[in-house]
Amino acid sequence: MTTPSRLDLEQDVVSLTAALCDIPSVSLQERDLADAVEAAVRRLPHLTVLRDGNAVVARTELGRAERVVLAGHLDTVPLTTPANLPVRREGDYLVGRGTTDMKGGVAVQLRLAATLPEPVRDVTYVFYDAEEISDEHNGLARLARHHPDLLAADFAVLLEPTDDAVEGGCNGSLTLQVHTRGVAAHSARPWMGHNAIHDVADVLARITQGQLPDVDVDGLLFRQSLNAVGISGGIADNVIPDHAVVTVNLRYAPHWGPEQAVSYLTEEVFAGLEVEVIDNSPGARPGLDRPAAAAFVDTLKLPVRAKQGWTDVSRFSALGVPAVNFGPGESQFAHADDERCRVDQIVAAESALRRWLG
Amino acid sequence: MTTPSRLDLEQDVVSLTAALCDIPSVSLQERDLADAVEAAVRRLPHLTVLRDGNAVVARTELGRAERVVLAGHLDTVPLTTPANLPVRREGDYLVGRGTTDMKGGVAVQLRLAATLPEPVRDVTYVFYDAEEISDEHNGLARLARHHPDLLAADFAVLLEPTDDAVEGGCNGSLTLQVHTRGVAAHSARPWMGHNAIHDVADVLARITQGQLPDVDVDGLLFRQSLNAVGISGGIADNVIPDHAVVTVNLRYAPHWGPEQAVSYLTEEVFAGLEVEVIDNSPGARPGLDRPAAAAFVDTLKLPVRAKQGWTDVSRFSALGVPAVNFGPGESQFAHADDERCRVDQIVAAESALRRWLG
Repeated sequence: MTTPSRLDLEQDVVSLTAALCDIPSVSLQERDLADAVEAAVRRLPHLTVLRDGNAVVARTELGRAERVVLAGHLDTVPLTTPANLPVRREGDYLVGRGTTDMKGGVAVQLRLAATLPEPVRDVTYVFYDAEEISDEHNGLARLARHHPDLLAADFAVLLEPTDDAVEGGCNGSLTLQVHTRGVAAHSARPWMGHNAIHDVADVLARITQGQLPDVDVDGLLFRQSLNAVGISGGIADNVIPDHAVVTVNLRYAPHWGPEQAVSYLTEEVFAGLEVEVIDNSPGARPGLDRPAAAAFVDTLKLPVRAKQGWTDVSRFSALGVPAVNFGPGESQFAHADDERCRVDQIVAAESALRRWLG
Repeated sequence: MTTPSRLDLEQDVVSLTAALCDIPSVSLQERDLADAVEAAVRRLPHLTVLRDGNAVVARTELGRAERVVLAGHLDTVPLTTPANLPVRREGDYLVGRGTTDMKGGVAVQLRLAATLPEPVRDVTYVFYDAEEISDEHNGLARLARHHPDLLAADFAVLLEPTDDAVEGGCNGSLTLQVHTRGVAAHSARPWMGHNAIHDVADVLARITQGQLPDVDVDGLLFRQSLNAVGISGGIADNVIPDHAVVTVNLRYAPHWGPEQAVSYLTEEVFAGLEVEVIDNSPGARPGLDRPAAAAFVDTLKLPVRAKQGWTDVSRFSALGVPAVNFGPGESQFAHADDERCRVDQIVAAESALRRWLG
């Protein structure tokens, strides 16, 4: 499209959600939507705007004592076949791709951007691309590399769906592989070899023994877990196997940095075994002790719980910005073929954030 | 080839071995060699000959009180690149594809066929195709279907390489898969699911507990074993797996039939688990209590031991014919790139069988 779709930010937040969904923006195909969002915020004289790839950053520059970020991603997972668009209304729900994850949240951002020219806290609105695909493409990570100064703030809210609650921080996620090595032999003469799959029993026992307790971090309870998520081994039905691999995933609470998690698995749980780290994404502390965060929780009067899964809040954490998730939608409908969002949650989210920023 | 290679059965057994090897006969490409063998035995007036595909059966019809089978396969595993043919002499060894597995044995059969017109026991010489590949092609199995009467005998000797010993009977081999089932969940919330890979620990523990002792069958000691030979499971690094499969191989002594082996694993070792039988090849009793077998052992004065691996002797066992393996060659060189056979073993095997039959 050479002329961006015109987004009317004066319409109600539910209609705006539908309008955003009806500009499809599957990951890596966000340009039309990014163009429309950029054009809409550039029409607002109280904001300074930057475009980076298919990310858009719009900021108030009021010299307030605090600055907060409201962030949301523009992309969605792929459409269904036939397409679960355009959006339609079904009773209390808007139904269609993006309604929950997370164009309801983006609509809230845009409504606040348009209607709060003088918020009590300076606000940085971040709209970014490629959250739903592999890390290398992530638009928020790219912004953090290109413009870390633009993301500086006292507190950040990601408007991912949180089911009428606030979710603080996130667990870290460490994936590694444990290799067992044996000696191959014909299975008619197993005593000539050493069975590497049988040694997996020890790996599984260590996983059982290596479970970690729940941890309170900044007042929120994080559940930790250690799981085998993959296993493979074997050469042929008549060969004693000489190699097996167990892929293990540790979800660790944000009181630990990434190095502590690696030490725990390599030096304690799997001490003496052959271990290879595959991926390690650090967690994020909820940071609810910061004044802006405390004011946020006080104003919203919603349940606050720990975020168990890894989310982009940890990218803010890495920049020194405590962050929470709060946005309209039920996470069970994210990525679902029948993706949908309760319209009253979208309205309530706009209203809650307006109270905090107004 | 339209004119078969002419095999000279008057030459010494070592030269004959080399001549047989130099007619390549990789599995399913045995026709040239089968033609040559058929032509050679048809020139012997004391034998009646039948051709079935690329198998050849030649029998004395002397009305003796006992009949024995001498059997060997004509095919080999594939040649190396460059080809490990033609055969060459290296010190005490003939070197090249087929020398050990098992054209030395075939040469012994042909020498006895040519030079023993009136053996003390009637002899059925069986030369067959496709032993080295999957069961469906096996020439001995095909002969057993087409001409079971031709294989009837009191005792059978397969001339597979046995390292200066007699190997009696063979273990059975049962392969099955044990499935564990769980409930998939995001690995950030493992308590929403059930980890099927963790349940593999129970399967491996049962394998350890399910090991079977050595068993004496007809005076020979058979070693039994139970092994995991394959394992797989896992959906993605961020998903609690809902399914894992362990492939298990049981080598069971021939005091058990195939049904007993299945009962043991399904009703005892893996009772209550989801089990699927993949393959079950029954073993064979050594049958050394039969007079022809006892005379064989008495005459050869060689060590007699149990055959641990599954071999075609079990096809004779299924026809009610006790069978042993006895032939020139060291099994460590079978299928090896540097396949080779000690020439004195070929000479000794011919001599030993001649004493028994002469």
